[in-house]
Amino acid sequence: MSLLVLGTVALDNIRTSRGHHRALLGGSAAHFSMSARLFTKVHLVGIIGEDFPPKHIQFLRRKGIDITSLIVRKGKSFQWHGEYKEHDLNTAITLATEIGVLLNYRPQIAFHQRRLPNVFLANIDPDIQLQLLRLMDKPKLIGLDSMNLWIARKKKALRILMTKINLFVLNDGEARQLVGETNLIKAAKALRKIGPQLIVIKKGEHGVLFYCDRFMFTFPAYPVEHVVDPTGAGDTFAGGLMGYLSKAGKVNEATLRRAVIYATTMASFNVEGFGMAKTAEMTLPKVHARMKKLVKFITP
Amino acid sequence: MSLLVLGTVALDNIRTSRGHHRALLGGSAAHFSMSARLFTKVHLVGIIGEDFPPKHIQFLRRKGIDITSLIVRKGKSFQWHGEYKEHDLNTAITLATEIGVLLNYRPQIAFHQRRLPNVFLANIDPDIQLQLLRLMDKPKLIGLDSMNLWIARKKKALRILMTKINLFVLNDGEARQLVGETNLIKAAKALRKIGPQLIVIKKGEHGVLFYCDRFMFTFPAYPVEHVVDPTGAGDTFAGGLMGYLSKAGKVNEATLRRAVIYATTMASFNVEGFGMAKTAEMTLPKVHARMKKLVKFITP
Repeated sequence: MSLLVLGTVALDNIRTSRGHHRALLGGSAAHFSMSARLFTKVHLVGIIGEDFPPKHIQFLRRKGIDITSLIVRKGKSFQWHGEYKEHDLNTAITLATEIGVLLNYRPQIAFHQRRLPNVFLANIDPDIQLQLLRLMDKPKLIGLDSMNLWIARKKKALRILMTKINLFVLNDGEARQLVGETNLIKAAKALRKIGPQLIVIKKGEHGVLFYCDRFMFTFPAYPVEHVVDPTGAGDTFAGGLMGYLSKAGKVNEATLRRAVIYATTMASFNVEGFGMAKTAEMTLPKVHARMKKLVKFITP
Repeated sequence: MSLLVLGTVALDNIRTSRGHHRALLGGSAAHFSMSARLFTKVHLVGIIGEDFPPKHIQFLRRKGIDITSLIVRKGKSFQWHGEYKEHDLNTAITLATEIGVLLNYRPQIAFHQRRLPNVFLANIDPDIQLQLLRLMDKPKLIGLDSMNLWIARKKKALRILMTKINLFVLNDGEARQLVGETNLIKAAKALRKIGPQLIVIKKGEHGVLFYCDRFMFTFPAYPVEHVVDPTGAGDTFAGGLMGYLSKAGKVNEATLRRAVIYATTMASFNVEGFGMAKTAEMTLPKVHARMKKLVKFITP
């Protein structure tokens, strides 16, 4: 079943020990789409400025992403300037953010997209996430991601959102920040109490913890030896997770475990190249081959 | 097959948000023994001062540990004063260390212990670890643990040791410190090059990475909701690992995976109580029950 994702479509400028790349196609919705596309039709909802390189738009279209609701406005595209230090590739250092056309963005969707059954609210201002939800006609499955900035600045909007969604994907630092709880199981339980039934706490290179009322599971990340650029790994993860669940058409313990294994595998491709260098080349056979290795790594 | 462990036997003074406990039985060899004893006869090699509480010695004996080579010397026992902050239970803060009788310790073993097939050099001065190895008559399996202090102060002795052992158990920070490599797979490969065939990198609450030439695997930790005191978790882990391998009598992929699962499970008991409160009560049925849950948590 089809999947709609709202989020940023950005120009990323990234510096790591492996090099410096400018104006890469990035943003939460773009990275998300790059993995979700392997499972289902993805409808991308977002905004770009007039300066957005046509090659990036053509690239998204070529990858089968529906960009009907990716609107273009007069002005600059959203840009992120970030850096990673060699000793801590888990932590992105934001050097600068240029908001551009995101500033006054209100999401718009086509009439036929209102009834899409699966929705993911990738990282973007929680007020915009709430606006998108109001446009939708009772989706079956709604996922949410956010970031430290919104937890600090828009906690109230975020807590309202949390009562309207099913699946919350966030990283360990964000979980701790949001509920003030160091222990991740306690944090997951506190998040569950606010609303979402399904809690997915990402721990970067340390893997993932899944929590819901009936069961819990935890997997390590796929061990990657040559990490090049982790930007978008969390979005790639979320895209694999929501993409697989949308394709499966049902949410139960078996589909959730499989969705998280897919998500873990796909995120490992993302970190091996700058921007979408590696996720753009992902195919299901490639993913399955690595997934087999991952399952072997983690089988008790 | 029997197992000999050399390491510290200490009085631990530990402060956490859950309380402050004084003169607890601690030390690397003591914690190690408390899990290894469930699999095989454990011979403890170490030193204590005349001030050591007789109840601790009786406790070790009651748990079936052979303390023939735990010698008592005039002077103070080794004491550790440590603290854990609520927000980072992975990191022990050393407030004070009183070396006492450890200062001039040279290990001694009984004649019949020279031929024990399995040896573990738990955390203690690397020079003392080397002395113990010289007393042994060609053990089949030798394991080694260490700590940041010795990596900083006695790197040369440690590197000599690494050429004489089979299995190196260390935590992620120590691995990075020892070989100057952030990525854990690269660090494991660099450690392997120095000598030991089997590399076990512990990542605290994030689990473990196992590396050898033929295969690699990684498991998350057992998710513990109520962490009380992590002191000795690494030693409990090592005890479970070496204990199971000693009992199995062979080292191959199947026994190594199973040994690491046992080790992970047993370490989770350790963190749930101060000192040895929980590991002292461990029985194989209790361990198997939790191991079943762990395997369920981590099954893809």
